[in-house]
Amino acid sequence: MAGEPKSAEDRLIATYFRPFATHPGALRLTDDAAVIAPPPGHDLVLTADAVIGGVHFFADDEADMVAKKALRVNLSDLAAKGAKPLGFLVTLALPKSFAEAWVELFAHGLGNDAEHYECPLLGGDTVRTPGPLAISITALGSVPANTMVHRSGAQAGDAVMVTGSIGDAALGLELRDAVTATKRWKLDNKHQHHLMRRDLLPQPRNALAEAVRVNATAAMDVSDGLAGDLGKLCDVSGVSADIDVAQVPLSEAAASVVKSEPAAIEKVLTGGDDYEIVCTVPPGRLAEFRAAAEAARVPVAEIGRITAVKGSPRFLARDGKPMQFKQTSFSHF
Amino acid sequence: MAGEPKSAEDRLIATYFRPFATHPGALRLTDDAAVIAPPPGHDLVLTADAVIGGVHFFADDEADMVAKKALRVNLSDLAAKGAKPLGFLVTLALPKSFAEAWVELFAHGLGNDAEHYECPLLGGDTVRTPGPLAISITALGSVPANTMVHRSGAQAGDAVMVTGSIGDAALGLELRDAVTATKRWKLDNKHQHHLMRRDLLPQPRNALAEAVRVNATAAMDVSDGLAGDLGKLCDVSGVSADIDVAQVPLSEAAASVVKSEPAAIEKVLTGGDDYEIVCTVPPGRLAEFRAAAEAARVPVAEIGRITAVKGSPRFLARDGKPMQFKQTSFSHF
Repeated sequence: MAGEPKSAEDRLIATYFRPFATHPGALRLTDDAAVIAPPPGHDLVLTADAVIGGVHFFADDEADMVAKKALRVNLSDLAAKGAKPLGFLVTLALPKSFAEAWVELFAHGLGNDAEHYECPLLGGDTVRTPGPLAISITALGSVPANTMVHRSGAQAGDAVMVTGSIGDAALGLELRDAVTATKRWKLDNKHQHHLMRRDLLPQPRNALAEAVRVNATAAMDVSDGLAGDLGKLCDVSGVSADIDVAQVPLSEAAASVVKSEPAAIEKVLTGGDDYEIVCTVPPGRLAEFRAAAEAARVPVAEIGRITAVKGSPRFLARDGKPMQFKQTSFSHF
Repeated sequence: MAGEPKSAEDRLIATYFRPFATHPGALRLTDDAAVIAPPPGHDLVLTADAVIGGVHFFADDEADMVAKKALRVNLSDLAAKGAKPLGFLVTLALPKSFAEAWVELFAHGLGNDAEHYECPLLGGDTVRTPGPLAISITALGSVPANTMVHRSGAQAGDAVMVTGSIGDAALGLELRDAVTATKRWKLDNKHQHHLMRRDLLPQPRNALAEAVRVNATAAMDVSDGLAGDLGKLCDVSGVSADIDVAQVPLSEAAASVVKSEPAAIEKVLTGGDDYEIVCTVPPGRLAEFRAAAEAARVPVAEIGRITAVKGSPRFLARDGKPMQFKQTSFSHF
């Protein structure tokens, strides 16, 4: 076997990424581009998100968790749009001092998730950076033509539905970041672990994508905080919403935090990194949506209703008064 | 107008990127994802490349040039595959100390190229980084079903064709990097400027895409050095090539460098960042390929022939002997 001597870059790709680039269109990662035949009669849904070491994850997070988080934040966008994953491309900027074992574990995590979510690796690029690790992923999905769920379709009277539980990741991040939180909140180990795990590893709701696509008038994934994200959805839909804060689904752990520190509800509602879906469902479709969610084993909760006059959603506390937030969502700048 | 208060991140996107995100599927950059209807009967061609400040461009390069380079390295991949651009997604990681004027100029450059190459901005992500500026772009193109040009189709007897001129960018980079090169090569201003410009701003050969698609058996873009890239093409095609170094097209400026420093031919052939196309064309299609290239105003040169036995291509010097390279192509690691 003669063949071209491989550069270290080619060898990394061949050793760790090629084994799970099994989609024929990935061309074994040996070409300039991937090629796929999009499903006839379908639209393509495209999303891209970057995650950076020290910003979106801790520099010492396990490599497989980092890989999964990078992919899952994109899968979460596809789920909220009602799309079925087709595949993804990844660019990986490695710091000068990377260990090869790190790349191996990273690729292992990525490959596992690609298989689990049926979202194959199609291609990408590996480069060097003098800065921290940076991962950018573009994910592609498909929906039957003209059925992608937009943010802009919410109608007055629609129920506002949320999946899973809200606020865990933001509380988990504070636990990982600040020792004082651990003391203040007096959580047992199980609850601490639950919250930190929710920050480390999102659980995107791709199992609910079809139910969202068929039943929701508008949807988005909750990534920058429920209050701000629902605000964006209302803004582009030209509506508002009344949310009953008591109905926002909390995990046992988050409920325990809010019980010992009631002010933590603001972090729960605005903290971000939930990777749940918020969507609006007309009353006539609620029963079907709930049944589909149950079949998909995704918990959903009704937290309020869309109202007609455009404005910021009102998050109503137990006393019926709208809460005031310092800021409604996470921003990088 | 009530509306949600915008975060600084949303404002950056709305102010500088939204104005040129005119494709309806970009949804004015106000949704989680973009949506496009792929052309019926066509395959999607997908490529992703990242560029990093201080690695792929100088930290003080003009923002519009940086944007164009980031997009053009991806357009070059589409061109080599015979694909017509459909659009792109960009993730932009901005250092803490970025100036807003920088983002404005960056977006301006990106928007100009998106329009010029008919490759609209579809979506992306803007994040903060403690490291250098990092830009990752995924570009999508289309080809009629099953006609993407692979690297793997080269056949013994095919002519090896190269567009434009080879080596300019590598020599230009040395001029920008090392003062000694300027002295050694005694170039006039026009030639210096030509070489440096070729490093700063690639000229992808998208005008030739259709001619490549219709006539080439294999193709790739020359990004990591002609010798190494042709080696990769030969490797996956299971062939080799005999290249007549005297036929490799050089610009006036590069020819002048090689005249004053004959050893510079190694940098020309292995240096990278050319963003030309190397492709293999059967003798029976050469006339049509040349005519199509002339119509597209893209210079093409025949530099050798594909040979049957798999192996590294031989670059034959004037004395007929194969050259020996220290390394055949650029590698990040």
